Amino acid sequence: MAHTTLYHIPVCPFCQRIEILLTLKGRRDEIDFQVIDITRARPDWLLQKTRGTTALPILETADGRIIKESLVILQYLEDSYPERPVAQRDPYRRAVENMLTRMDGDFFSQGYLWLMNQDPARRDALREGMLQQYAQLNDFLLEHAPAGPFLFESFGWAETVFTPFFQRFWFLEYYENFALPDEPRYARVRTWIDACLAHPAAQQTTQEEVVKLYYDYSKGAGNGTLPPGRGRSSMAFEPDWRIRPWPPRNKYEHSATDAELGL
Amino acid sequence: MAHTTLYHIPVCPFCQRIEILLTLKGRRDEIDFQVIDITRARPDWLLQKTRGTTALPILETADGRIIKESLVILQYLEDSYPERPVAQRDPYRRAVENMLTRMDGDFFSQGYLWLMNQDPARRDALREGMLQQYAQLNDFLLEHAPAGPFLFESFGWAETVFTPFFQRFWFLEYYENFALPDEPRYARVRTWIDACLAHPAAQQTTQEEVVKLYYDYSKGAGNGTLPPGRGRSSMAFEPDWRIRPWPPRNKYEHSATDAELGL
Repeated sequence: MAHTTLYHIPVCPFCQRIEILLTLKGRRDEIDFQVIDITRARPDWLLQKTRGTTALPILETADGRIIKESLVILQYLEDSYPERPVAQRDPYRRAVENMLTRMDGDFFSQGYLWLMNQDPARRDALREGMLQQYAQLNDFLLEHAPAGPFLFESFGWAETVFTPFFQRFWFLEYYENFALPDEPRYARVRTWIDACLAHPAAQQTTQEEVVKLYYDYSKGAGNGTLPPGRGRSSMAFEPDWRIRPWPPRNKYEHSATDAELGL
Repeated sequence: MAHTTLYHIPVCPFCQRIEILLTLKGRRDEIDFQVIDITRARPDWLLQKTRGTTALPILETADGRIIKESLVILQYLEDSYPERPVAQRDPYRRAVENMLTRMDGDFFSQGYLWLMNQDPARRDALREGMLQQYAQLNDFLLEHAPAGPFLFESFGWAETVFTPFFQRFWFLEYYENFALPDEPRYARVRTWIDACLAHPAAQQTTQEEVVKLYYDYSKGAGNGTLPPGRGRSSMAFEPDWRIRPWPPRNKYEHSATDAELGL
């Protein structure tokens, strides 16, 4: 029997959203997950399915129809498997959740922008921009869910959308020495993040995997491309990240070789 | 009895989406529309409602709760008034509509970027970028709705989202002499646009209003700000746009005075 298939990249935060949602619904095993290697050109058979676009994840339904964009795929799965709802059903509560969800783009962009920055003179401004993002989330949560820890009673739609970013931003702790300050203006968002990170449905990755795979991003080379002088991508499947050493943290002073990275 | 209130800016495309949806649902008269003057600072009472943000539209529910972001407001109204559905209900069809909806940001940005451009050397590249946007819409419609004219049987969610932009882009015809080329690669999107523009639920504005109000945008001054040397905004409520002359079209060679614009 034909299955629904998800074409995804391991460690991609947008792909992880789908895994979290399916886990919450108890449907993780009903979808066939096909891993795509981001360090190689997309295969022709995949480009034919997508009509030429390269972004992932892509969902292929059992009858061969293609759905793109993580939030669109999430909604499709939410509508297709309505039994354990993850999204809110009440119109106003759904609107609150959607307002928070729409803050995801700026939050994501600021974190990746900072990670990929190569100019030490810009670090302070990038840190400031990142703190502003956390402050906005804090303000939103204080307004709509002061008691916490989640936006509503349990880990739901907004948590599914944001948790993969909270986990990716471990790369800022490692490569930019960033820590969310222990101040009241971040207290509510910190509670949210801690509860998200601890949730059993969101354990698809670890700090070690994120830090090792995103080394090239920290040197300004995104999407499986290579920093100058390197022969293998830190996003490569082989050697497995578990047997590689932890990368050097001093991205502004040093460019690691393949050998230093265990590649 | 307290009403639901929409705070909006006339001629704002994001605000018009709400009017179109309510018209399709036969609910236009149940919402209290409060006009906000974009040429003045936001009043304190409004900033209190929004907790400091200035973007419009804003919906205030009858019990005083605030909803921001046009797409979030659309979904809230769709959920609150489910009787005449505008969005698709089948999960796959809803996903198709959502994929098209997610193309709205790039389409909008490209059009406004071109309108606000002040450098004649960049015109060709901006025209090319705009054509690419139309080609992408054309491709999407060919894949999912080759027969047309709409994405599905009738004017629906995607049409509600895009039609205000099709009408705003009359400013490109006027100030940039842009016309979608009469070529097969744009034939499907042209059919869609024509059907959208002709729909009775989407007649909230006219080419004349758009062209006259957006003059300052064509000179690079957005959101009610003033181009150099000017005292009044083309977005001002007085004098009414109907009694003003049509603005000069030669934005790269000439800067009209308040008097020339009938302000």
